[in-house]
Amino acid sequence: MIKPGFTGSPLDRSDHIRNDPEQYNALLNDWRGRVLGLDGLDPKLASEGGLHWHSMAEISAEVELILLGMDQGKPHFVPIVENAGGEMRSMAVWRALTVLPPEDAAIYGTARSLIDWHNSHKYCGRCGGTTKPFRAGWGRKCGHCNTEHFPRTDPVVIMLAEFDGKVLVGRQPRFPAGNYSALAGFLEPGESIEEAVRREIFEEAGVRCGPVRYVTSQPWPFGGSQLMIACIAEAEGMELTLDTNELEDAKWVSKEEARAALDDAPDKVFSAPPPFAIANSLLKHWAWH
Amino acid sequence: MIKPGFTGSPLDRSDHIRNDPEQYNALLNDWRGRVLGLDGLDPKLASEGGLHWHSMAEISAEVELILLGMDQGKPHFVPIVENAGGEMRSMAVWRALTVLPPEDAAIYGTARSLIDWHNSHKYCGRCGGTTKPFRAGWGRKCGHCNTEHFPRTDPVVIMLAEFDGKVLVGRQPRFPAGNYSALAGFLEPGESIEEAVRREIFEEAGVRCGPVRYVTSQPWPFGGSQLMIACIAEAEGMELTLDTNELEDAKWVSKEEARAALDDAPDKVFSAPPPFAIANSLLKHWAWH
Repeated sequence: MIKPGFTGSPLDRSDHIRNDPEQYNALLNDWRGRVLGLDGLDPKLASEGGLHWHSMAEISAEVELILLGMDQGKPHFVPIVENAGGEMRSMAVWRALTVLPPEDAAIYGTARSLIDWHNSHKYCGRCGGTTKPFRAGWGRKCGHCNTEHFPRTDPVVIMLAEFDGKVLVGRQPRFPAGNYSALAGFLEPGESIEEAVRREIFEEAGVRCGPVRYVTSQPWPFGGSQLMIACIAEAEGMELTLDTNELEDAKWVSKEEARAALDDAPDKVFSAPPPFAIANSLLKHWAWH
Repeated sequence: MIKPGFTGSPLDRSDHIRNDPEQYNALLNDWRGRVLGLDGLDPKLASEGGLHWHSMAEISAEVELILLGMDQGKPHFVPIVENAGGEMRSMAVWRALTVLPPEDAAIYGTARSLIDWHNSHKYCGRCGGTTKPFRAGWGRKCGHCNTEHFPRTDPVVIMLAEFDGKVLVGRQPRFPAGNYSALAGFLEPGESIEEAVRREIFEEAGVRCGPVRYVTSQPWPFGGSQLMIACIAEAEGMELTLDTNELEDAKWVSKEEARAALDDAPDKVFSAPPPFAIANSLLKHWAWH
């Protein structure tokens, strides 16, 4: 079974509490409450490994909190910290992800996506009025026109085109030297997952595809809140016409080459994405399937 | 092969033109251009069936247009009409969908989702400044802080829990009498498709589920822009505890009962969702699989 990164949070989201101000206030006054420790947007790590949690007593009453969920009777919160938006991941968070237990990475990912959403929805898109958090941090309401806004997630398709036992991997100019990954792009209004997969592969690499198989999915908390949807598409040919605004290079690789990359073998012909990226899960699924 | 509603648009979205103001201006002056006819948010129908298209000459130069895409060398646009937001579907659009060819429904769906997005993003969520369309209508830019905003789509999971050869269908109070459908809900930041499916079934019906199989997907243009992701989940039992805020009733149905509903048989025990809804495609896939 595939276990993509940022999945497997042990927290019960407890939607019913979000809608019940009385229950929520009781949780805010519960001494067992835990508040996620952050350093800017990066996770604070506990000395014994894992995320660092503050007690409620350490948190100023003015700090706006989001209820991440319940675990073993304890409410878990994260503060809505200010951020300028569109922050890319720091080296620190990247390093943290290589040591955090998967359940902790899932909690952190949820928290980071929600913080980003709050910061990018301070004003109402309909009327320009100021919005304020409600529903235990799972919404913002406009003080002017009363429109309710809810946390959003952008679907992204990420996929391998497959032809004659090989799959297509590409590299963006910003990737570390030698790194290749699955192609990816935002799904647009008015298209299905399958249509977005075919459109993106054709736009980026000039390859037409037929049937699309869904493989797995993952939330991704960098640059907002994304839902990564991993697929494999049957290509109709191997000739490439690259969109050089998107891709610096792309190539077809065999299962042996994919396995060598995933195993970090000395004779590997490319470097694979890190284990917490769904491109890694997708390539692994294909290479050993 | 499953062909969900609102898929199969013949238009080439031509992303490269959106980013090229010179090419885009040439299209705005192309006499072959076609502009989608709307009556409020509802589609105007042509007398010979299908969508009604205006020529460019019929459109005032002040109207803001979105480039839907190209077909046979002709640019296809839709005007950004004003709407108050959150409009539910009218009876007229519901009737139109029963007669529109699938390709036309797909074009209309894309247009409607984009119009809704423009109307709900007139102001910048970060700074409250006024935004203006750019990228051929596939974006809005803040005149104050320069933040670029792009059309968004909200992922929704829609699913059947399966146990012992039966699946769970439910009805919301707003459904027509006798109608049952798949359960559904918005995917939240920080969860995968599989996690959202399990959470929603448990929240709405109190049923725990294990493995989740993806079936198909569909864009849905009512109440914004949604990506419907249809799945089947393996339930661990049949006992129901309904969230009566969400569901008025739910029941387990057999393949025979699902087929009778889909065939609109006289002895049917429930009425199925309409063919252009993905719940119909999902139920069909399960009942005849």
